[in-house]
Amino acid sequence: MQWKFSKKLITRYKTIKYDGTFAEEESYIIKEIRHNIYVNGEFFASVMLIPEKQKEFTYGFLFTSGIINNSDDVVNYRMCENYNIYVYLKDPRPLGNNSTWTITSGCGGGKVLDKTYDDIKTIDSVFKISAVDILNHFRVLEKESDLHSATRCVHKAYFAGSGGDRITSDDIGRHNTIDKIIGGIVLKGLSSDGILISTGRLTSEMILKCSRAEIPVVVSRTAPSKLGIDLAKKSNMTLAGLTGKKRFTVFHDPGRIE
Amino acid sequence: MQWKFSKKLITRYKTIKYDGTFAEEESYIIKEIRHNIYVNGEFFASVMLIPEKQKEFTYGFLFTSGIINNSDDVVNYRMCENYNIYVYLKDPRPLGNNSTWTITSGCGGGKVLDKTYDDIKTIDSVFKISAVDILNHFRVLEKESDLHSATRCVHKAYFAGSGGDRITSDDIGRHNTIDKIIGGIVLKGLSSDGILISTGRLTSEMILKCSRAEIPVVVSRTAPSKLGIDLAKKSNMTLAGLTGKKRFTVFHDPGRIE
Repeated sequence: MQWKFSKKLITRYKTIKYDGTFAEEESYIIKEIRHNIYVNGEFFASVMLIPEKQKEFTYGFLFTSGIINNSDDVVNYRMCENYNIYVYLKDPRPLGNNSTWTITSGCGGGKVLDKTYDDIKTIDSVFKISAVDILNHFRVLEKESDLHSATRCVHKAYFAGSGGDRITSDDIGRHNTIDKIIGGIVLKGLSSDGILISTGRLTSEMILKCSRAEIPVVVSRTAPSKLGIDLAKKSNMTLAGLTGKKRFTVFHDPGRIE
Repeated sequence: MQWKFSKKLITRYKTIKYDGTFAEEESYIIKEIRHNIYVNGEFFASVMLIPEKQKEFTYGFLFTSGIINNSDDVVNYRMCENYNIYVYLKDPRPLGNNSTWTITSGCGGGKVLDKTYDDIKTIDSVFKISAVDILNHFRVLEKESDLHSATRCVHKAYFAGSGGDRITSDDIGRHNTIDKIIGGIVLKGLSSDGILISTGRLTSEMILKCSRAEIPVVVSRTAPSKLGIDLAKKSNMTLAGLTGKKRFTVFHDPGRIE
């Protein structure tokens, strides 16, 4: 199939296919770029991202790390040609140090501030969604997964807000897709009331990010970990997974699903 | 299907399946535990692991981080009941600080020391393998993937050394599976000459780890990123992916594949 993607995102690359005999072919390869993020001139983190929605990622990552609470907390954002990202906060605060981070199991992002483990929010949203609508949203996510189909190297996340807002994101890291979604919510000042669907596994840090953003319904194509379920319980989040065209499994709180 | 797994690794959990109607079922959920690793009493990293092969992981992670070169560099290893891991080195050295780490896109592990980016080894192994043997090894990996089949929440890695050694590992993080394999090689003092097969995507940090361990042939069920391919080139590593029962794609150096 002939895909059409931005050259900044994808490179076409000569490869050799073996399927009994060797033959030349061409593959679509996703680009991965390192960004150093500085907050008020202080080094905060280096992250690997696909070259898309870096601003959304940065706002989301700062939000899920507890560094900002909304977009007004940022007075200046810029990304330079060397991919360094500089953020200036209205009210500078301590960024934490190495010992306050946990290296997570997640594709992308891959670390969370410890304090988020002790600071789980209880989500009190009355948002409800029908099982049929969950499957409908999932079908949209699957339908829009060209980048994954072409590269076999990215995750996708999809947010449908109760007010009708839609946000999608792609990245190598499943974490990063969540941070990009949450950054989109933060940047636009949207309500996070709604459903988030991810192609990635729902491990602890995925749930922590969604809990911090107070997203009431979180769904995956694959499965959660035990700690992911425990944290979803603690934050009163509806958690589902193993989603396919016609089915899914609820791991916590079916009450929000009609 | 009735699987048999250790209770320390898996919990059976009541869930609700929707496939047109709602029904109770039981799912197998993988456990995820946080370990704080201290080196010579100094905090080194917090990592999320499935409760298996923590010692292999620690040795591998210290090796791929450039902290140790072989198992003799460790004079004492212990894991306590609170899951804290304490390592004492023969020749203590600086561990790096927050600004020397990159948060990677990877499932597990999720950060690498910067110096490994500038310190790529050229692998001069003369190891060769037939295309048929790559597929045979891949079939073994697939056959032994019960933990993934049951939980849908783990990656697997498999190493077959030129001397006949076999090592496998499972973890939520694709990185962690690589560190566990490399830790197994380091702990047993084995040669790393051989083939490593992963179920995870081959992003930059995956290649960096394998390069540091000088594994000449690295293969994935899925795809590499562009930076992954670039680093494989730089280290003279044979890189293949998109592997299925009867096919794979070579992304760099088909010369080692007969």
